[in-house]
Amino acid sequence: MANNDTVRFGILGCAKIARKVARAIALAPNATIYAIASRSVEKAKKFAAENNLPASVRIYGSYDEVVEDSDVDAVYLPLPTSLHVQWAVTAASKKKHVLVEKPAALDVAELDRILEACESNGVQFMDGSMWLHHPRTAHMEQLLSLANSTGIGPVHFIHSTSTMPTTQEFLENNIRVKPELDALGALGDLAWYCINASLWAKAYKLPTMVTALPDVIRNSAGVILSITASLQWDKPNQTVANIHCSFLSHTSMDLAVCGSNGSVHVKDFIIPYKETSAKFDFTFGAKFVDLHIGWNVKPEEVHVANKLPQEALMVQEFARLVASIRDRGSHPSTKWPEISRKTQLVVDAVNKSLELGCKPVAL
Amino acid sequence: MANNDTVRFGILGCAKIARKVARAIALAPNATIYAIASRSVEKAKKFAAENNLPASVRIYGSYDEVVEDSDVDAVYLPLPTSLHVQWAVTAASKKKHVLVEKPAALDVAELDRILEACESNGVQFMDGSMWLHHPRTAHMEQLLSLANSTGIGPVHFIHSTSTMPTTQEFLENNIRVKPELDALGALGDLAWYCINASLWAKAYKLPTMVTALPDVIRNSAGVILSITASLQWDKPNQTVANIHCSFLSHTSMDLAVCGSNGSVHVKDFIIPYKETSAKFDFTFGAKFVDLHIGWNVKPEEVHVANKLPQEALMVQEFARLVASIRDRGSHPSTKWPEISRKTQLVVDAVNKSLELGCKPVAL
Repeated sequence: MANNDTVRFGILGCAKIARKVARAIALAPNATIYAIASRSVEKAKKFAAENNLPASVRIYGSYDEVVEDSDVDAVYLPLPTSLHVQWAVTAASKKKHVLVEKPAALDVAELDRILEACESNGVQFMDGSMWLHHPRTAHMEQLLSLANSTGIGPVHFIHSTSTMPTTQEFLENNIRVKPELDALGALGDLAWYCINASLWAKAYKLPTMVTALPDVIRNSAGVILSITASLQWDKPNQTVANIHCSFLSHTSMDLAVCGSNGSVHVKDFIIPYKETSAKFDFTFGAKFVDLHIGWNVKPEEVHVANKLPQEALMVQEFARLVASIRDRGSHPSTKWPEISRKTQLVVDAVNKSLELGCKPVAL
Repeated sequence: MANNDTVRFGILGCAKIARKVARAIALAPNATIYAIASRSVEKAKKFAAENNLPASVRIYGSYDEVVEDSDVDAVYLPLPTSLHVQWAVTAASKKKHVLVEKPAALDVAELDRILEACESNGVQFMDGSMWLHHPRTAHMEQLLSLANSTGIGPVHFIHSTSTMPTTQEFLENNIRVKPELDALGALGDLAWYCINASLWAKAYKLPTMVTALPDVIRNSAGVILSITASLQWDKPNQTVANIHCSFLSHTSMDLAVCGSNGSVHVKDFIIPYKETSAKFDFTFGAKFVDLHIGWNVKPEEVHVANKLPQEALMVQEFARLVASIRDRGSHPSTKWPEISRKTQLVVDAVNKSLELGCKPVAL
């Protein structure tokens, strides 16, 4: 629905993920799809038809037309990662707010060009990490807070995975494993989430050391298909986070965070099993009973309902920030760009560790 | 209960864990406690009284008396690890079958001395890894079998933890972190399970490479309190297993095994929450629904009942093998010694990797 507060989105590209986000924009109460572009107008028309976009949506045969459209407030970029810097910088220079699919960029140097363009043009930046906007995430975050005496306490260990099965054809030809399009492969597409989650669990404190493990698997073009890495935080709050990401395994998106007093466990942290509610397991104060023949507690299943799917909540949050800048002269929020940048820094460190033969890389 | 098939146990030492195993011996239908020894007869008497051992149980003030008692079939050794080799070899030389608490030994050289003594004396060896005897483990094992087309398929990723909170007093003075008693610390006491589980998930195939991570934490005497390591199996069935073990965290004993077609997840793999049944989560053929807004399946909760607790099942299995050797002239089973030896080999490799500054160690 569109009213005065509504943020008008232009979508650059018709990738599969754009279908999900187009729906999210339609669901978000403060956002509307204003324009859709592909490199061919036919492809854009087809996308609009297949996704039941309203007839009012402007259909463009080039990305330039969207960023030149003065009625567009914000762009969503579902483009291959190698194109992010070009189109995010161009959009920002035209005063469009930028919602970019993850990974935000190929490396932090590229991301910094994007962030500088956004900052100097006073526009909001956010990457498309949807799970951070789910109320379950906020609920778990309360349990991670050191101010919460019934929370898990200082975090000691984080485990996360992002794996999905693919076909042989995907592994050689999909955009996400093409060196000229998404050179980071599984490290960008999947590990983004696990790194993101590890940072989230540590209140976005950067690790002191990042180590890639030697089990990396690449395709014939050298793009990463499977990667394992370990992130380490030094004293006073020592923590280790292990991540495993692969295009070669059954679907998994595990997140476990273990502290001194408790733990949280999720098996669907990136995409919840169902749209309308999600759960996590919370264990607190677990001890063994006498003789160590059982536990004093079982994990509590905590269910969190959500009226809007997480991707619509992401769009809503982004549009809220955009409207605040557009209508009330607010400054762009630095929260989301900073999360993206820290995530990208760790992605870079994993890559660096791989280059060094899996030696630890200090951050 | 004692009858002709019953195996008569002598227990060497009154450690806490001996209480649990004494109860397990009493519960196992084919085993009985015949003798208990401590370094002082008073301590042994106290143990017998506190654990309601029958008046018929012989109380000894030295370990020697148990291994010299010709009515004792088998010994259970809950002694500090540094004493395993001495007492296991002595017991074997007296034709006593040997059930030894984990870790089996301080290193594979010591374990080999024990295994050679057992082999040359024709007695059974087993280490005290109870969870391997739970019917849940057998149930999950069926899902790991490559012959099972509705199982998880070739294993790609294994995650396991064994963490428990302790006190500052424990961290400096407990037997399990004393260099002269249990020099392996958390690597022996906790990682034994995680290494064991990783090998189990790979049908006991040894990894090709073992890498310790740099986040190791030691006490003032240099004994490991917290350790993270990664095990890697090369082609044709590439797999990575990450383990994390710590005396510094909240209680956790996670095991997740992810293959090409499915996964299993457990949060209480070492000690089940309850004695009489245990569950695991099984996910098979998971895909995202259209638009990637959810999953086509949720994990199935598989509940497995057990009449006897896992430690009694362990004793029962051990006693079954002992009776078969004693009464029917069978050869000792090589299954359990081989599992112990492979676990110990990986423990050694993690230690070696630590010595080398966390360099990968080939096996």
